[in-house]
Amino acid sequence: MGWSEYSSARLSLLTEHLMSRPRLTALIRSLPAFVPFVGPEAQERARNRPFRARMGANESVFGPSPNAIAAMEAAVSENWQYADPESYDLRDALAQFHNVSMDNIVIGEGIDGLLGLMVKLVVEPGDAVVTSDGAYPTFNFHVAGGAGRLARVPYSDDREDLDGLLEAAKREDARLLYVANPDNPMGTFWPASDVMQLIDRLPDGVLLCLDEAYCDTAPTGELLPIDVLHPQVLRFRTFSKAYGLAGARIGYCLGEAWLVAHFEKIRNHYGINRVGQVGALAALADQEYLAAAVAKIVRARDKIAEIAVANGLTPIPSAANFVTIDCGRDDTFARRVMEELIARDVFVRMPSVAPLNRCIRVSCGRGEDLAIFAAELPEALIAARK
Amino acid sequence: MGWSEYSSARLSLLTEHLMSRPRLTALIRSLPAFVPFVGPEAQERARNRPFRARMGANESVFGPSPNAIAAMEAAVSENWQYADPESYDLRDALAQFHNVSMDNIVIGEGIDGLLGLMVKLVVEPGDAVVTSDGAYPTFNFHVAGGAGRLARVPYSDDREDLDGLLEAAKREDARLLYVANPDNPMGTFWPASDVMQLIDRLPDGVLLCLDEAYCDTAPTGELLPIDVLHPQVLRFRTFSKAYGLAGARIGYCLGEAWLVAHFEKIRNHYGINRVGQVGALAALADQEYLAAAVAKIVRARDKIAEIAVANGLTPIPSAANFVTIDCGRDDTFARRVMEELIARDVFVRMPSVAPLNRCIRVSCGRGEDLAIFAAELPEALIAARK
Repeated sequence: MGWSEYSSARLSLLTEHLMSRPRLTALIRSLPAFVPFVGPEAQERARNRPFRARMGANESVFGPSPNAIAAMEAAVSENWQYADPESYDLRDALAQFHNVSMDNIVIGEGIDGLLGLMVKLVVEPGDAVVTSDGAYPTFNFHVAGGAGRLARVPYSDDREDLDGLLEAAKREDARLLYVANPDNPMGTFWPASDVMQLIDRLPDGVLLCLDEAYCDTAPTGELLPIDVLHPQVLRFRTFSKAYGLAGARIGYCLGEAWLVAHFEKIRNHYGINRVGQVGALAALADQEYLAAAVAKIVRARDKIAEIAVANGLTPIPSAANFVTIDCGRDDTFARRVMEELIARDVFVRMPSVAPLNRCIRVSCGRGEDLAIFAAELPEALIAARK
Repeated sequence: MGWSEYSSARLSLLTEHLMSRPRLTALIRSLPAFVPFVGPEAQERARNRPFRARMGANESVFGPSPNAIAAMEAAVSENWQYADPESYDLRDALAQFHNVSMDNIVIGEGIDGLLGLMVKLVVEPGDAVVTSDGAYPTFNFHVAGGAGRLARVPYSDDREDLDGLLEAAKREDARLLYVANPDNPMGTFWPASDVMQLIDRLPDGVLLCLDEAYCDTAPTGELLPIDVLHPQVLRFRTFSKAYGLAGARIGYCLGEAWLVAHFEKIRNHYGINRVGQVGALAALADQEYLAAAVAKIVRARDKIAEIAVANGLTPIPSAANFVTIDCGRDDTFARRVMEELIARDVFVRMPSVAPLNRCIRVSCGRGEDLAIFAAELPEALIAARK
C-alpha cells in the first residue's frame, strides 16, 4: 500500500476515531499543563536573538574540571554503549568521597529525576507534603504528579522557616518535608546546628528531603555532616551547579541503605547517559579545580552584590551560586526589571511567589558576564521605573 | 560541633529512630526488587575480566555518524549549560524527517523513560495491560511501577501474536497494549499490512504502544508508515540501536498532538543531557551513514545466522540488530550455551520465558566480534552438551 492510499484510508478512520481517544487517568486529567521553568533557549527563539549573558539558570559558566572535559571527549567515541546501569564507578567514588557505602547512594538524571522517584516512594494520593511557599517549583511539579497534597509554609526573613516547616509537617501529618539548603530562589542558608535540630525533631513517619544542590558554595565547615544512619533523611546533591556540569544530568541521593534500595524498584535503570556519568566521575576527582571554581563563584557573588548596592538595590546574602536582589518594591516592579534586563540580552529569573517576588535572581558569571550586567542594570532600572 | 561529637550523637539517635523509618506506599512495598537487565559491566566486575566481544545488549558497535561524534565532542565544552528542555532543534528535525508537526513528538531518556510516562498517562491501579509473554521486560517493570495488571499472551511461531494480543486486550478491557515491531527478544517482524489490521481493530479506549526501537533495520518499505492522526497509537523510536548512540539516552515518541501534550504534565523537563541531544540531532541528519551502518548490521546478521547453521543451530530470521538462535533443546541447555560463551568472554543474552528461552540472543558485531563468536561457539556448545 502506498503512502497516499494509506493516508486517505487513515483520514477516513480519523473521524471514526476522534471520539475514541484513550482514557487518561483521573490524576493526569486533573494536572495543570504547568512547566516549572521555561528555558532560555525558548526565550531566545521568541526574541529571535541570543542572550549575551546567561545568568538565569544557576549553571556554572566556569564549567567543569578540564579533566572532566577531557574524560567526556574521550567517552564520546564509546557512546554506542549504554552506561553501566549500576553506576558502579561513580557510586564507588562518591562512597569514598563521603565516607559511606555504595548502598547509600543512588544516581539519577539530575536531582529533578530523583525527586520524582522519592515522591513515588512515600506519597500516597492525598498525602500531605510540606514545602516553603516559593521554593523549588520542580519539587512541587513532582508532588502534583504523585497526587500529593502540598502544604506551603511562608519564608521567614527570606529564609526557609524551619520551625514553621516542622510545625506544618506535624499538623498535616506529612509524609514528606522539603528543605533546600542553601535555599533556591533566595540563596539563604542554615548552618549545621539548625538543620540538626530540625532533624532531631522530625515527627515519626515523615521523610526529610534535604536538597543540597547548592551545598558546594555554602560556608565551609557550616554544612551538615553527611549522615546516612538516620532513616528519615534523604540528601540530594548534583554535578549541575558548582561542578559545572548542568548538561550532564547527573545528580545523586544519599541516605540509609534500606530506603535507598527502594529506588531500584522504580528508577529508570538505563536512564543515565554515558558521557555525563564519565564527566561526573572525573569532576569529582578534581577537588582542586572545584575549590578554584567555588572561589570564582564567591568572587562573582560579591561582585553581583556590589553592583546591586551601587544601583541602590539590596542583595540578599547568598550561600549559593547566584545572588537574589531585592528590588525594593513589589513583584510588578521586579518583573519589569527582569524583563528590561532580558530585553538587554541578560538572562535572569525571579522568584514566583510573594514576598520573594520583589526580587530578581542573578546567577554568577565570568568577568564579561558581570560587566554586561553592571552596564545594563542601571538602564534596566531606569526603564522599569518609567 | 566536630565530626566525632556529631557522629556519636547520631549513633545514639539511631536506636531511637530505627523504628521510625518513613512509611513506603503500598505499591512500593508490593513491588519486587526486580531489575530488568543486569549490565555487562556488572558481569565483568563479577568475572574480574572484560568481555572480548560485547554482543548482548543490542547496541551498535558500528557507532554513530562521524558527524555525531564531532558534534558531541564540540558540545562537551558547553556541558555547563542545561540542554534546551523543549528539545526544540531535535523535535524540529524529527518533525521534518517524519513529515509531522513538532507537537507530535516528545523526547525522553531513551524509550525506557517514555514507557514509564506512558503507563502513567493511561493506567489506573489494577487496569489491565497486555503484552507478549517474554517481550521487553522493562515495559513490564514500568507497568508494575504504575500498578498495572499485566496480561501476557504467548508468542506464536516466535512472533508476537497480533490476533491473540487483540483478543486479550478486548477480553481484559485493557488500557494499554504493547507491541514491539521488530520484536525483541526474537527479532521477528510484522509488515505494515498486519500492523494496520491490528490498529484498525483496536477496541475503543485501548492505547497501542508500538515500540519500534529496531525499526531502522527492518525490511525497507515494509514498515508501517508514520501516522500521527490515530489517537490510539503511540510509536516509540530511539537513537540507541541502528543510530549507534545507546549511551546518549535519546528516544522519542510520536503520536497525536493531544495525547503527546500530556507527557508535558509529568515528564522530567530537564532530564535530557546536552551532549546526547546534540549527538542525536547530528546522527539524524546523516542518513547516508545510517544506511551504511544498517548495511553492516544486515551483513553481520547474515554472518551470525551462518555461524549458527554451521554449528547445527537454527537462527530465527531477524529484522533487528541481533539474531536469536534456537539452540534446539530446552532453556537449561540454552542457558548453558550462554554461560559457556560468557565464560569465553563473549557477552550474549537469552530470552527469559518458555518457549523463547530455548534460544540465545546475539547482537550484531564487527568482523572481529563475529570471528570471536565463530571461534567460541563450537567450544561453548561442546561444553554445554557435557
